[in-house]
Amino acid sequence: MVLEPKITLIGAGPGDAELISIKGAKALAKAEVVLYDALVNEALLEMAPENSIKIFVGKRAGQHSLKQQEINQLLVDSALRYGYVVRLKGGDPFVFGRGYEEIDFAHSYNIQTEVIPGISSSISVPALQGIPLTHRGLSESFWVITGTKANGEISNDLKVAVKTKATVVILMGVNKIKEIVEIYKNNGLGRLPVAIIQNGSTPKEKAAVGVMNTIVEQIEENKIGAPAIIVIGEVVSLHPTFQPILSSYEFVDTE
Amino acid sequence: MVLEPKITLIGAGPGDAELISIKGAKALAKAEVVLYDALVNEALLEMAPENSIKIFVGKRAGQHSLKQQEINQLLVDSALRYGYVVRLKGGDPFVFGRGYEEIDFAHSYNIQTEVIPGISSSISVPALQGIPLTHRGLSESFWVITGTKANGEISNDLKVAVKTKATVVILMGVNKIKEIVEIYKNNGLGRLPVAIIQNGSTPKEKAAVGVMNTIVEQIEENKIGAPAIIVIGEVVSLHPTFQPILSSYEFVDTE
Repeated sequence: MVLEPKITLIGAGPGDAELISIKGAKALAKAEVVLYDALVNEALLEMAPENSIKIFVGKRAGQHSLKQQEINQLLVDSALRYGYVVRLKGGDPFVFGRGYEEIDFAHSYNIQTEVIPGISSSISVPALQGIPLTHRGLSESFWVITGTKANGEISNDLKVAVKTKATVVILMGVNKIKEIVEIYKNNGLGRLPVAIIQNGSTPKEKAAVGVMNTIVEQIEENKIGAPAIIVIGEVVSLHPTFQPILSSYEFVDTE
Repeated sequence: MVLEPKITLIGAGPGDAELISIKGAKALAKAEVVLYDALVNEALLEMAPENSIKIFVGKRAGQHSLKQQEINQLLVDSALRYGYVVRLKGGDPFVFGRGYEEIDFAHSYNIQTEVIPGISSSISVPALQGIPLTHRGLSESFWVITGTKANGEISNDLKVAVKTKATVVILMGVNKIKEIVEIYKNNGLGRLPVAIIQNGSTPKEKAAVGVMNTIVEQIEENKIGAPAIIVIGEVVSLHPTFQPILSSYEFVDTE
């Protein structure tokens, strides 16, 4: 048998295993090795051949996690040794997934690569809660921003985004929620609608829907934590449970 | 038989029929009626039952197209008359898809609805060309904007986006490309990388990759037209064919 080293990056979608694409599932069914992240639904591994090698490369509480450079090397070594490698990533592999770095590293070894896009959590998780990122009269655009940069800080882009009419989606930002709320409050946007959705598209899905002034309390009440997506903007008011702040509060506030 | 009226909005993905989700394909296989848009790959209709009713509701050159209100009514009438209706939309149904308006109208008739997200062209079409919307050191966010508002104009959000470091993705904007290029040039960004991709993920895919100063000419040379996606920002320089403007040009320009 002649080995044909190849690496395919597949977007696994937001969590529900059936939200992988048909193309992704077909590629997975041919894998000799599967490298997967923490955000990938493990039910997807059953779509890979029974005798394929499955390697977890994500972060789990209290455990050592592989560095990006180690993942890159493991992908290449696996392809050279076993042939067809599938790299399964949560959401879409090219949205804050460092997917390009993996592709680039594989190319430096002349290994053939392919990308099969996935359903990004940034769009689908709000949609499954009934929140469209765009809606005539409310929003003509949406801006997806990382809540945690390489240095651990919030992207400066958020400080610009707060001054625009774009719907803002923040990924990996739930641990920064107090800081995010402060930025909006400092811009006079305490009443802007905001939603936080944890484990979207899975049976463990939980959400808090409110306004900037109330959301921190709602998150604590509902015990919402990572992984979660934050959606900010008038479109959040379309959520079926959205309640604007009581008018009595508004009355006091405007006295 | 008791009719159970229900409407499911399904994202068909960017064009390649196999980029629909497994969940979407399964729902389609149970449809009594399918309403589909111009951007939907008609190969997907073969996933619906042979005896189901397929109704094209998109725009085609020289033909009358249904108004949104007519589509809303047809969805509801079909559900009340036939039961299970699938509304198949290109990309993701909640990204500039007016999907929420359809869901909202169905609810006003107490018809049960469901949304099955799709792979949005905004993310996947650049990815399939090798352009990641985010990449460490180049971009911490991406901003997706409509090139054609209800009134036919470009969104004002673009005038703000041009001043940020976000990767900008413009949908339905290829006919506005000269106006878009002017906005960037007026901000001193004639050398910013930009790509235009027509019919992404299909055998008819075509792309032009360059900088603001050259892109209009490249589009004309390559005869690129709608439907196409515009990607703007430093991440476009990662495209395998990207060539910065010749240094001789740069020399002249800085004299």
